Amino acid sequence: MKLYDGGRAPNPRRVRIFLAEKGLSIPLVPVDMAAMGHRSNEITSLNPLQRLPVLELDNGSVITESVAICRYFEELHPQPPLFGEGALGKALVEMWNRRVELNFMAPVTSAFRHTHPAMVEWEVPQIPQWGEANRPKAIGFMAVLDEQLATSAFIAGDQFSIADITLLVSVDFLKPAKIVMPEEFVNLKRWHEVVSNRPSAKA
Amino acid sequence: MKLYDGGRAPNPRRVRIFLAEKGLSIPLVPVDMAAMGHRSNEITSLNPLQRLPVLELDNGSVITESVAICRYFEELHPQPPLFGEGALGKALVEMWNRRVELNFMAPVTSAFRHTHPAMVEWEVPQIPQWGEANRPKAIGFMAVLDEQLATSAFIAGDQFSIADITLLVSVDFLKPAKIVMPEEFVNLKRWHEVVSNRPSAKA
Repeated sequence: MKLYDGGRAPNPRRVRIFLAEKGLSIPLVPVDMAAMGHRSNEITSLNPLQRLPVLELDNGSVITESVAICRYFEELHPQPPLFGEGALGKALVEMWNRRVELNFMAPVTSAFRHTHPAMVEWEVPQIPQWGEANRPKAIGFMAVLDEQLATSAFIAGDQFSIADITLLVSVDFLKPAKIVMPEEFVNLKRWHEVVSNRPSAKA
Repeated sequence: MKLYDGGRAPNPRRVRIFLAEKGLSIPLVPVDMAAMGHRSNEITSLNPLQRLPVLELDNGSVITESVAICRYFEELHPQPPLFGEGALGKALVEMWNRRVELNFMAPVTSAFRHTHPAMVEWEVPQIPQWGEANRPKAIGFMAVLDEQLATSAFIAGDQFSIADITLLVSVDFLKPAKIVMPEEFVNLKRWHEVVSNRPSAKA
């Protein structure tokens, strides 16, 4: 088994943090995304969407999409559970992971990709007006996050989950996206310090 | 338990089709989205994101996000499995469901929301240039879908899954989004006829 890894981008980091939380060590194949390595023939043959990360199993099966790769490892190594426990627990992790992806990670990455000059070849067509429109969306959703974290240790409840990983890589991507977290979101800020201090955050 | 339902929109329909495939009948509370019923105080108190569907359990717990609601029912009623079986099977359903959501459902709905005059109050700011940019993205991804369906009965393999439901509601939303499926995608067209003939498609 090997994991084609894309370095600092949010999605490859999501999977590396997940593996660190599980205590798993999977052979990584580094791909230089800055040099467009994710559009090579090798990666394209594994993933026609030319995105990373990509997990290749020993039998030749290929899994793409970060959360799908994480779910594969959750099934093989259920402890610690990072997708929740019980029907309601699993549903709430799924809910928060998706809320964060759709209402925060997507606006943050869209702001970056549609306004940063280095992204002109990545995001075609680059539409700066759309990029700008995403900054207030991301900031607006921080109010929902802050309210949830006022009464909850982690974003989907008392236990750390994949939803916290998705939120961490998104918050850490605010800087390249040129979005500043307003000072008023003290619960979100407290959560960010706690989660950043977990050893997995260095992955 | 009750499901606040939003009528013809793709996400509410996703959950209704899922329930029909499971043979489950859940009390529905219709919400008139055309009259902005999803922004009422009642719905806002259940879901601050003001989106439908919303599942309210008898103990007061609330689950939002269509796939999270579906996962709750999958856990309670595993048969027939609609999220895949085994670690690899579950990962591949997750992969294809996400591929369809991110590369097809999102462009189709963005094209609609950013170009349709009736959506001006829904999508703020409405950016027609972004809406137009999404039409070729949706058409481009149909080539990936068509290639997969050349060798696979359903989108994630031999078994019908939630990924087929996501794809069905997205294909059926091409018309309001003013996107035409090119004639060349014969496998996608064949799949659409097969899936549209399942009784659940009427849900």
